[in-house]
Amino acid sequence: MQVLLSGAAGFIGSHLVDRLLQDGHRVLGVDNFITGDAVNLAHLTGAANWSFVQADATSNDFVARMTDLGPFDLVLHLASLASPKDYLAYPLETLESGSTATRNMLEIALRFEARFLITSTSECYGDPLEHPQRESYWGNVNPIGPRSCYDESKRFAEAITMAYHRKYGLRTNIARIFNTYGPRMKLDDGRVVPAFLSQALGAKPLTVFGDGTQTRSFCFVDDMVEGLCRLMLSDEREPVNLGNPQEITLLEFAERIQRMLGTSSPLEFHPLPENDPTRRQPDISKAKRTLSWEPKVNLESGLATTVAYFQGRLAAH
Amino acid sequence: MQVLLSGAAGFIGSHLVDRLLQDGHRVLGVDNFITGDAVNLAHLTGAANWSFVQADATSNDFVARMTDLGPFDLVLHLASLASPKDYLAYPLETLESGSTATRNMLEIALRFEARFLITSTSECYGDPLEHPQRESYWGNVNPIGPRSCYDESKRFAEAITMAYHRKYGLRTNIARIFNTYGPRMKLDDGRVVPAFLSQALGAKPLTVFGDGTQTRSFCFVDDMVEGLCRLMLSDEREPVNLGNPQEITLLEFAERIQRMLGTSSPLEFHPLPENDPTRRQPDISKAKRTLSWEPKVNLESGLATTVAYFQGRLAAH
Repeated sequence: MQVLLSGAAGFIGSHLVDRLLQDGHRVLGVDNFITGDAVNLAHLTGAANWSFVQADATSNDFVARMTDLGPFDLVLHLASLASPKDYLAYPLETLESGSTATRNMLEIALRFEARFLITSTSECYGDPLEHPQRESYWGNVNPIGPRSCYDESKRFAEAITMAYHRKYGLRTNIARIFNTYGPRMKLDDGRVVPAFLSQALGAKPLTVFGDGTQTRSFCFVDDMVEGLCRLMLSDEREPVNLGNPQEITLLEFAERIQRMLGTSSPLEFHPLPENDPTRRQPDISKAKRTLSWEPKVNLESGLATTVAYFQGRLAAH
Repeated sequence: MQVLLSGAAGFIGSHLVDRLLQDGHRVLGVDNFITGDAVNLAHLTGAANWSFVQADATSNDFVARMTDLGPFDLVLHLASLASPKDYLAYPLETLESGSTATRNMLEIALRFEARFLITSTSECYGDPLEHPQRESYWGNVNPIGPRSCYDESKRFAEAITMAYHRKYGLRTNIARIFNTYGPRMKLDDGRVVPAFLSQALGAKPLTVFGDGTQTRSFCFVDDMVEGLCRLMLSDEREPVNLGNPQEITLLEFAERIQRMLGTSSPLEFHPLPENDPTRRQPDISKAKRTLSWEPKVNLESGLATTVAYFQGRLAAH
């Protein structure tokens, strides 16, 4: 198939490109490099079936430009400023990525009658009052808080995706992605996995926000890519949670990393940012049922791979 | 002051134009006439300080076009497809009105360092689990339901408004408008006040969705306009509820209209539309406190004015 993928130089985007090429598809990747990194695509230079265009999916000429480069069978909208550090620095770009960029990618899919998939987020559930979160849960999001540029942008993206599906019968898919980790995360993206790992590897204190009893569930990127590949060909039109249901407190996670790296970096506690969710765990029974998918990589093995990547990146600096 | 007002030909927009002109401001109204009606502005033809441009606030050249017509001290974004009948018929335009049009109006305000006000909605609270609704309530909205094209569009509009305020220090205001009624509502807009009135005046059965025990609270448009005028000059940056806290069930409301018109139109019950809120009542203590505002027109008197208008419109047909 011919695939258009936005956010190709991002963490999950670049892994998905690798997988689609492995599976024999032709892929055109686009990225505006606001948060994407060309390093993530460097290994593909000259690869068969692969091409790349630097472009901003929010620009006025984007639909026309991409239409000239079509046709496409699959349009995948992964472009997003996914880390709090990034979206708080670029709130307007974040809002545009959910609104204008999503509309543009949907328009391209519509022109070619292509399948469309958007990576939404567990942040649509906000600070959830239901636990674990099922897809039927409507969420608890502060529409005017500092994080709303991300959360509401993604909720808008889901709404417009469903509107295109309802109005035009477009075959759309919505993945609600929970915390994902692995190689190619940015060392300094502010999220807990790269933060703890780069702190531990640098023999610095591990920064814990709040008292560390808040939970997260971490999905290794290979599992996430597998889930996305199954979802993009499925007949499910409503959102599907993709993530690892294994829940762990930040304190347990910090200790796990200390043990794994044999370090004794102390923990340093900081105040919890506003509206930071206290619990987050996917209910993935829908993904199991409709996609026969569940995560296979355990935290120990996924972290080992990730540590090796971070050690390589830090050594290269 | 010089005012730019989108949605000028709409129900609330046209009343606000009248009031601003009365108060001595110069007003440039814009409307794309998707749901606005030129009849609502006909009485202003040739009026001093009034001008009108037919334009779509979502179009690519809108910001440049309006910038040429500035400067403005106040930018008021009222353009919206506010009735379920309209936004279900135009889901994509509804989404654009909250996203692209809001961004464009914010950009214009930014260029002139003008004050900005957007009319948001009680629909941001969705099917509320808190009652009555205070501004601090985060809402219960289905992001992928048929109504999400409206609800999520407005939540996005609030998020982008706050982002412009936080990033640029723009003086923004967000009005969360609850059900409002009065002259210039569209006879066929599908909302309960015009629906009941045109049915009763036409001696047809009154259509009740659900069992009629769901509540609404109805604010007369003159009260709403007064609230908006106070809010647009206030120092409050976060959303403020504007509406009438007097709660009434749809059944009581139907009986009130039957009594007032001396008709015995029977009630006809239909299934409740998906995600229709069962209770909706503003807590207006914030508006009382910060704007010294509260509704003054009681339902009987407001309905009498509205009935007179509808009788006139029906007679003119």
